Amino acid sequence: MTTVAAYAAPAAKAPLERTTIERRAVREFDVLIDIKFAGICHSDIHQAREGWGEAIFPMVPGHEIAGVVSEVGPGVTKFRVGDRVGVGCLVDSCRECESCKAGEEQYCTGGNVGTYNAVGKDGEPTYGGYSEKVVVDENFVVGIPEGIALDEAAPLLCAGITLYSPLKHWNAGPGKKVAIVGLGGLGHMGVKIAHALGAEVTVLSQSLRKQEDGLKLGADHYYATSDPKTFEELAGTFDLIVSTVSAPLDFSAYLSLLKRDGALVNVGAPEEPISLNLFSVIGGRKTLAGSMIGGIAETQEMLDFCAEHGFGAEIELIRADEINEAYERVLASDVRYRFVIDTATI
Amino acid sequence: MTTVAAYAAPAAKAPLERTTIERRAVREFDVLIDIKFAGICHSDIHQAREGWGEAIFPMVPGHEIAGVVSEVGPGVTKFRVGDRVGVGCLVDSCRECESCKAGEEQYCTGGNVGTYNAVGKDGEPTYGGYSEKVVVDENFVVGIPEGIALDEAAPLLCAGITLYSPLKHWNAGPGKKVAIVGLGGLGHMGVKIAHALGAEVTVLSQSLRKQEDGLKLGADHYYATSDPKTFEELAGTFDLIVSTVSAPLDFSAYLSLLKRDGALVNVGAPEEPISLNLFSVIGGRKTLAGSMIGGIAETQEMLDFCAEHGFGAEIELIRADEINEAYERVLASDVRYRFVIDTATI
Repeated sequence: MTTVAAYAAPAAKAPLERTTIERRAVREFDVLIDIKFAGICHSDIHQAREGWGEAIFPMVPGHEIAGVVSEVGPGVTKFRVGDRVGVGCLVDSCRECESCKAGEEQYCTGGNVGTYNAVGKDGEPTYGGYSEKVVVDENFVVGIPEGIALDEAAPLLCAGITLYSPLKHWNAGPGKKVAIVGLGGLGHMGVKIAHALGAEVTVLSQSLRKQEDGLKLGADHYYATSDPKTFEELAGTFDLIVSTVSAPLDFSAYLSLLKRDGALVNVGAPEEPISLNLFSVIGGRKTLAGSMIGGIAETQEMLDFCAEHGFGAEIELIRADEINEAYERVLASDVRYRFVIDTATI
Repeated sequence: MTTVAAYAAPAAKAPLERTTIERRAVREFDVLIDIKFAGICHSDIHQAREGWGEAIFPMVPGHEIAGVVSEVGPGVTKFRVGDRVGVGCLVDSCRECESCKAGEEQYCTGGNVGTYNAVGKDGEPTYGGYSEKVVVDENFVVGIPEGIALDEAAPLLCAGITLYSPLKHWNAGPGKKVAIVGLGGLGHMGVKIAHALGAEVTVLSQSLRKQEDGLKLGADHYYATSDPKTFEELAGTFDLIVSTVSAPLDFSAYLSLLKRDGALVNVGAPEEPISLNLFSVIGGRKTLAGSMIGGIAETQEMLDFCAEHGFGAEIELIRADEINEAYERVLASDVRYRFVIDTATI
């Protein structure tokens, strides 16, 4: 056991504060990681405030972790001390179900283990990346290629893979028209990745406030969804729409923007049920679907892809004592485009 | 112009009564069909009662038409006098849009023409199959193979293709577990076709009342959805669920019956918007989709498939003067499984 400094929410809705937690001793297949940077994901806030149901406190959020290996267990073959590595939303899974065998650990039906706010197979609660060190089984660690700075790599572990996976699954690429709804932490990665995949990319944002950014990030077009003309003009346009927002959209209106056989894929979602007229999927044989992060192998593939194309996330680096303020700014959509904690400041 | 006898609704919600209508003279590419049988589709009732928005009266419903060619225009190459033929839901389309070029005339974006309750390119209203004869462009006529009796073939033109198209599109076949929701006119065709495609077929019906029929039609399993244990037992089971019902289902519950990457496809739909928790598609990367009849070439393929497997629809043959009574019985789900009008009785 090692005692390490961390930032934790002591109870639901309480501000995060500096504390210490215990990390387990390195086991046969474990990797000890000196965390360098941890991204702040919107879902950290949901969970720290118990917005998604009963949570485990104290909670150390953070599932966008980038760091350097400082120790490996005797059975570890994938990593060596000094390797640049990342950890995303999962630190374990059943490894036996159909999804796990297919490398889709995110859809594990036997029960996967979240990086924080979960209980590991050893019965101990998991603690996330807002801390100095973490111990993770090597099968849930990915390598961060030299081409990406560690701070810009951290958000790829959740925001990056959350967009990469559906864009690949629904065949974004040359000749395809792809829309990204929302230009926040998730959406800005969607624009970068869809553009790098060769698709023609449109941002659908509430206003034109971030238009200049969107075009710089790789979007070919930028429309304000507050303007009803947008929906007239773009009717029947897209092969794929990926919605990153948790606002309750007018889903029938967004489905009308799809071509025949197009898909509207949600990676963000409102907590409340949505209302949907099924005729909006029947006409045009359209799909309303969802997607959740990605598998471990696919996360490695995504990091390699981003390195090859020379990009990470757009970040604002903060000190650990700015986390609570950063949470408020995330809720106010006042971040371009991801807060990343410099864990040396914990 | 030819005057022919027909059964028509003179106004919304008025009973259907015998009348006469004019059929156009046979043009260069037209086929004149002596209608032998016409199926009664649930949507005939919706439209005759103006449940789907403003309708054109008098209305001669019927888009499940089986008959024999009695005259062809000089340009017709596909059919000869004496051929056994069918007409489904469409009698024309723009023929120029991406969907038409792909043989998916049902999703024509330039405007297709319904077999009834529509206006043709000549500006004249279209009248459906509850009549003695119909004149249709050869491109919207299909051949009925010898292997299927004409009366049992009629319902294939709508009910058959409505199920065949999504079952093929979503890859029902050997090794796939397929559920059909509802065992009515549509559902019974779904069971027959999915079984013939080689899938393992489960019927999900409100009660076990039609269980014996369902198993005879080719279902491997039969469950009552009124029993909450059904949803526990079948969680994560199906690759594909096709819902044929227009009742507002608990869509989150049905989505929970799908495997990862499974699809719930609606060919029936409630008129009112449904409520859906998007997390039920995000977990497991699931699809909620829709499908509407099928293209003309695919309709021919379906008829050939049914003939090859030696089946048509299960029907109750009625006289024309029983149409109004049959409508009431359809609304009461009291038909096994499709009413077909013997048009000789008009």
